[in-house]
Amino acid sequence: MADTRRLLELLRVRHPVVQAPMAGAQDQELAIAVGEAGGLGSLPCALLTPSDVRRMVGQFRQATRAPLNLNFFCHSAPAPDATADAEFRALLAPYYRELGVDARAPGSAPERQPFNREHCGLVEELRPEVVSFHFGLPTPELLRRVRATGATIMASATTVAEARKLTAAGCDVIIAQGAEAGGHRSMFLTSDVAGQVGTFALVPQVVDAVNVPVLAAGGVGDARGVVAALALGASGVQVGTAYLFCIESRISALYRRALTMAHDDETRITNVFTGRPARALRNRLVDELGPLNAAVPAFPLAANSLAPLRAHAERAGLADFSPLWAGQAAALPGQRSARELTLLLARAAGTA
Amino acid sequence: MADTRRLLELLRVRHPVVQAPMAGAQDQELAIAVGEAGGLGSLPCALLTPSDVRRMVGQFRQATRAPLNLNFFCHSAPAPDATADAEFRALLAPYYRELGVDARAPGSAPERQPFNREHCGLVEELRPEVVSFHFGLPTPELLRRVRATGATIMASATTVAEARKLTAAGCDVIIAQGAEAGGHRSMFLTSDVAGQVGTFALVPQVVDAVNVPVLAAGGVGDARGVVAALALGASGVQVGTAYLFCIESRISALYRRALTMAHDDETRITNVFTGRPARALRNRLVDELGPLNAAVPAFPLAANSLAPLRAHAERAGLADFSPLWAGQAAALPGQRSARELTLLLARAAGTA
Repeated sequence: MADTRRLLELLRVRHPVVQAPMAGAQDQELAIAVGEAGGLGSLPCALLTPSDVRRMVGQFRQATRAPLNLNFFCHSAPAPDATADAEFRALLAPYYRELGVDARAPGSAPERQPFNREHCGLVEELRPEVVSFHFGLPTPELLRRVRATGATIMASATTVAEARKLTAAGCDVIIAQGAEAGGHRSMFLTSDVAGQVGTFALVPQVVDAVNVPVLAAGGVGDARGVVAALALGASGVQVGTAYLFCIESRISALYRRALTMAHDDETRITNVFTGRPARALRNRLVDELGPLNAAVPAFPLAANSLAPLRAHAERAGLADFSPLWAGQAAALPGQRSARELTLLLARAAGTA
Repeated sequence: MADTRRLLELLRVRHPVVQAPMAGAQDQELAIAVGEAGGLGSLPCALLTPSDVRRMVGQFRQATRAPLNLNFFCHSAPAPDATADAEFRALLAPYYRELGVDARAPGSAPERQPFNREHCGLVEELRPEVVSFHFGLPTPELLRRVRATGATIMASATTVAEARKLTAAGCDVIIAQGAEAGGHRSMFLTSDVAGQVGTFALVPQVVDAVNVPVLAAGGVGDARGVVAALALGASGVQVGTAYLFCIESRISALYRRALTMAHDDETRITNVFTGRPARALRNRLVDELGPLNAAVPAFPLAANSLAPLRAHAERAGLADFSPLWAGQAAALPGQRSARELTLLLARAAGTA
């Protein structure tokens, strides 16, 4: 429990429960509910404009005095690649034809910018208590500026080597993201999905390798997962998929329905939606073009070519082209409020 | 703990610790040491002749009154396929040339027979207290005969659907084999490795799905893993890789050296060694032909074409073509005796 106490100090919360930032699936309401219950609420900023972030943080601050985690991506923004784009469009052409969507329609997926000076300015302005990074870390200069705000800095590691690299750069908390986790793999020192490590094996090895508190992520779907994570040496948990089931999440009815029918073996780590490996429920696109396809353009450009197709299919009630991010334990959590879920996990951790 | 008590009754042991049967890596000495320490020792019979099994069981019975688990494979034996064999030989030809091994040398890998009447006769003759199956179950008739001996029947599941199928057929104990586990994936209702489920997510879902005790397998490398497995709802653990480090295991110096240098992310689920997916440390063959290669002949025929190459390389001190089976937590256990390891795990389970 020594490290759990340290974690609670660093995150300024009562419970060692972090709501995973889930871009596109939540707004401040989920973070507020988690924060009010004593966990750490997170806002995923990767898909948001600065003014969106300002507005959401403002609403969060108005609603609660709980601390807040702002999450950013740290990928390298790829140069537009017309050849790769054309190759992917060709792969998608049969779907465009089948759905009667104009294949020349410009893609309109929300932009995903890596953490930059503008984001850093936002952090300096909005002063989140915690800042977390995915896909590695920003430049040393930007990281210094974030640290200078007094924010606790967290980042995700999918291997021991990544955890070591992150702590060497000064991360205060490591999120050990096991292979079971839904959404994008944070992998940044490797691109080989086949070497990704399961939560059960990853957590104790990361704990042994670093001197900072470790959050277990991936497969934590109920109280049992919290107890197990702490037994493996984690100081707390980061939970994503289970929070998607909460009424405060902002997912489509299609997505919600798919989640409630999820089985243990029905997710895949796939790059077909964005160009980076991420765990999602199987659907038509994953099955027919994936799970991993070398012709998919670099992250995040792939999403652009898919956007018109996805929008059209969703209007027709089909989730065939939608990324249904989910972890391998999606069958464990039931539907409940984010407050109830946070307290259930907190009770398992022994802090509520 | 209710289910742990039930497990201990079924396995007739003091501690909820099962030594995983590891074909080619152990003999009765490991099983004896584990049994004497109060765990369940296992003998992998898949690579053994009936007379080998008789001899080893005889030595086990002479050394200890502990119960014994005999383990068998339940794959479908493939018909010899000259075309597939030739295709694989062609893939391997550059290695044969490089090492100066006669590519026409007949392969001589030990035969791997699925559980058959002869094996069943052995079980009836030798009366192991426990019989465990990998790759599904034998025919209903053979299973009935095994049950009639009074043996407790265990089998491995890699998904909830497999666990349900095994319990419906009357298995007394389910081994939930998470994706972290070393050696062959027991998968028998699916061949899609990408859908395999991590231990952390698999165990609670299997526990929820079946009414028999569940052993957690995959990633249990030290005391923390035992506590975590029980927290997830398992009644006990099956441990493989950690027992390979014990002085009682029968692995080559090459294999032992590779294990001691293993990192979390250096194993792959590969079919290149036998034709079936199995987790092993990366080596030259895995990296250059695998991890998964559609041209590898059906299990277990692939091993034949590799045997001369492997033998030659091993004599030269190279593990380039050897299956170095290992789980993702190989960096956790240290070297100790099988007795010490069993008692360490038992103390974590609260039974020692």
